[in-house]
Amino acid sequence: MARAYNFSAGPAILPEEVLKEAQAELLDYKGTGMSIMEMSHRGKEYTAVHEEAIANIKTLLKIPDNYSVLFMTGGATTQFSLIPMNLLGEGQSADYINAGSWGSGAVKAAKKLGKINVIADTSKEIPTRMPKNSELKFSDDAAYVHITSNETIAGTQVKEFPKTKAPLIADMSSDILSRPLDVSQFGLIYAGAQKNLAPAGITLVVIRNDLAERAPETLPELFQYRAFIAENSLKNTVPTFPVYMLMLVTRWLIAKGGLEGMQKLNEAKAAVLYKAIDDSSFYKGTAVPEQRSPMNVTFRLPTEELEAQFVKEATKQGMTSLKGHRSVGGIRASIYNAFPAAGVDALVAFMKEFEAENG
Amino acid sequence: MARAYNFSAGPAILPEEVLKEAQAELLDYKGTGMSIMEMSHRGKEYTAVHEEAIANIKTLLKIPDNYSVLFMTGGATTQFSLIPMNLLGEGQSADYINAGSWGSGAVKAAKKLGKINVIADTSKEIPTRMPKNSELKFSDDAAYVHITSNETIAGTQVKEFPKTKAPLIADMSSDILSRPLDVSQFGLIYAGAQKNLAPAGITLVVIRNDLAERAPETLPELFQYRAFIAENSLKNTVPTFPVYMLMLVTRWLIAKGGLEGMQKLNEAKAAVLYKAIDDSSFYKGTAVPEQRSPMNVTFRLPTEELEAQFVKEATKQGMTSLKGHRSVGGIRASIYNAFPAAGVDALVAFMKEFEAENG
Repeated sequence: MARAYNFSAGPAILPEEVLKEAQAELLDYKGTGMSIMEMSHRGKEYTAVHEEAIANIKTLLKIPDNYSVLFMTGGATTQFSLIPMNLLGEGQSADYINAGSWGSGAVKAAKKLGKINVIADTSKEIPTRMPKNSELKFSDDAAYVHITSNETIAGTQVKEFPKTKAPLIADMSSDILSRPLDVSQFGLIYAGAQKNLAPAGITLVVIRNDLAERAPETLPELFQYRAFIAENSLKNTVPTFPVYMLMLVTRWLIAKGGLEGMQKLNEAKAAVLYKAIDDSSFYKGTAVPEQRSPMNVTFRLPTEELEAQFVKEATKQGMTSLKGHRSVGGIRASIYNAFPAAGVDALVAFMKEFEAENG
Repeated sequence: MARAYNFSAGPAILPEEVLKEAQAELLDYKGTGMSIMEMSHRGKEYTAVHEEAIANIKTLLKIPDNYSVLFMTGGATTQFSLIPMNLLGEGQSADYINAGSWGSGAVKAAKKLGKINVIADTSKEIPTRMPKNSELKFSDDAAYVHITSNETIAGTQVKEFPKTKAPLIADMSSDILSRPLDVSQFGLIYAGAQKNLAPAGITLVVIRNDLAERAPETLPELFQYRAFIAENSLKNTVPTFPVYMLMLVTRWLIAKGGLEGMQKLNEAKAAVLYKAIDDSSFYKGTAVPEQRSPMNVTFRLPTEELEAQFVKEATKQGMTSLKGHRSVGGIRASIYNAFPAAGVDALVAFMKEFEAENG
């Protein structure tokens, strides 16, 4: 069987080269007679993997010295709670920008734990869009500002992050490592691994060290960023295999030209697909053009019946997981870093064919 | 390279057959052209994996209908906090039995969150042992009783669980699925996956459903057992690959005769190793004989220098990770379900040889 063109929004496609390397050494990691997943998280083989994974992230994101790279668990959704638990002091409030389903989730979880000001909300707008920076009125005394860099379901992306006085915290689950980033703009960045980093099971956190000191002593240690910094994410057993995969994926990214190289590839792929949408009156993009995501390309067909047929016929041709999120319907093509340009070309060819037959 | 005899305490050895199956289908799961780790956690392929993993656990442990099987993250150490957060009501207290490092960790985490009565503490005793049931004086009004079924570092195991009025909660990280169990004796059982279940990255929880209702509404949803029950552990993205591996491991266990079959194999392996210790005056077991663990066999040599030399020479012969935990020293041979009897025989032969040369 040839590789499918896997448009899954996450867990998502991984680089074929990485999967082949993992497969080749799955029973015998570097002549040890053991799988990497059978090894102690404190042994020398895994320690080297762990350190390279962190070093690769630091290299790719050019992370300043006063930040730490952490591997946590529970996904971005757990971070929705850990962020206020660590960073929102008694009596303080935080500003949230809500541009879609993931922003809404972050707001909902944070509201259970403290005072939250939703300073902009475009989560229900159609066509989908994100608030413009000019629309944002920050509170004077916010403990932090929370933003979602890419709304996976809406198919929108922040193009320029707002300047904030309070530390800016960004959920980058669906576009982490897809473009260069000035980390010094942020207090904390987090991302579930299963879109652009690795298989599901770890959450990447990049945090400015001083912010971790805000956590109250009463917080359980494994909920404290501080404890993860102090023990290099090894306070307890880290999910070693997902970190190993992240190490291989980031090594692959560096070999591909880093984030500048990846951005070029991602923009080229997205341009081909958005052009196909714009050139047609049959397909209609759901996001405003200036905030279209290069990671999740969302569009509609004239009817839901045609959308269902589109997904079904595409699947038969080896193009899988094109169905939009159950909450919004439509079509969603997730074309993360590891998604090949040839798969976009195949989708565009199929779109033309489908329109010719059904348009 | 032949497979090493991997005595790691965790992450630990996995069945070779399971690794081979995972390797064979790593790039193409059942003809889909995708890896299982690249698939949506809501798609039909992963759903079947998830359901089989749960069904296998239910079959192996003969789980009553009023219990749920959950896949959580954060390891057993995170459960140390989640248990009191969910089950210890305002003003209530809980009883803890502390028989070693893991019991101590559970006590320490719980004390941050509520009133804890340590009703027995053998954690500092040498030889290592667990409190006898006759030593336990339960509180009248405990919200629950917490016990550690197998102390990985001490090399001890509970042979008969105490009868308790309050729900009994057991950390079974290092002996889950190693012997038959009457689940109805327990309110909650939990286990990090990386010893007897799967690679690191998921935590198995078996909970009596009514207990999950104790959680306060103010608790973040992803910290609530109730939310995991309600959404079949799919409220957010579950670590799909570790669950897939657990499914393969439990399928392997069923084929090996289930927990009765596994217990026989485990007892036979442990008997060979403990006999080698008892037959020698050079090696000295660290646990009292009546509570020796069949999972983690701990022993000392006459000097620390000899212990270091023992570990070094064993490693050269392909027997790895025999060094005792950094907190206690000595030798520890972890011989979980997946550890082959031939590896125990090889270790015993090496022990005799080493004693002859150095005794």
